[in-house]
Amino acid sequence: MSQIPKLSFLPPEIFGQSMRVNEIDFTDVRPLPPFKCSRFVVNPGQVSPLDVHDVKECWFIASGNGIIHYNDDVRTRVNHGDILYFDSNKGHQIQNDNTEDLVAFSIWWP
Amino acid sequence: MSQIPKLSFLPPEIFGQSMRVNEIDFTDVRPLPPFKCSRFVVNPGQVSPLDVHDVKECWFIASGNGIIHYNDDVRTRVNHGDILYFDSNKGHQIQNDNTEDLVAFSIWWP
Repeated sequence: MSQIPKLSFLPPEIFGQSMRVNEIDFTDVRPLPPFKCSRFVVNPGQVSPLDVHDVKECWFIASGNGIIHYNDDVRTRVNHGDILYFDSNKGHQIQNDNTEDLVAFSIWWP
Repeated sequence: MSQIPKLSFLPPEIFGQSMRVNEIDFTDVRPLPPFKCSRFVVNPGQVSPLDVHDVKECWFIASGNGIIHYNDDVRTRVNHGDILYFDSNKGHQIQNDNTEDLVAFSIWWP
């Protein structure tokens, strides 16, 4: 019998009232993938903390919609189904201006 | 003004009545990421074609739910929010036994 191909999540990291993030546990995947990933939820009416880092990152918007703030000078609406790319050291955060959860997957790599 | 950080999709690949797949266009991302990705939709009551390949793959289930068939001997229900990992040359397909679209993101790497 093959192993069920569902990955587990590490315990959540909670950001006050705004967001919770669960990183994926790749313990059983060898060799390790060339990226890490997580799932996060931004609560209705909340904005995720500003995130700035050297690694590059993609967000896959799974459900809900919101407004992306990118590199100080861009604000644009994004919807479920969209895929976003953030270059190194470009600040990004998302405002959930809706009444439902905003759920997204994130992957990042060096 | 920074570029809006939303990636574009290539034209869809249509699999009969069952599924449509849009690969991501990474033309404007340099260096290229160490993976490729797509978004796909499995229609209600349909099953995706059997997929077997050397590259490793993760699926992020964005909305809906269905039954994964994996490596001939595993069948298990998956729900929106789940992340799946398929090892090299392990056949996988998903049956959407619901009345709503099943939407997922796929990433694959060597």
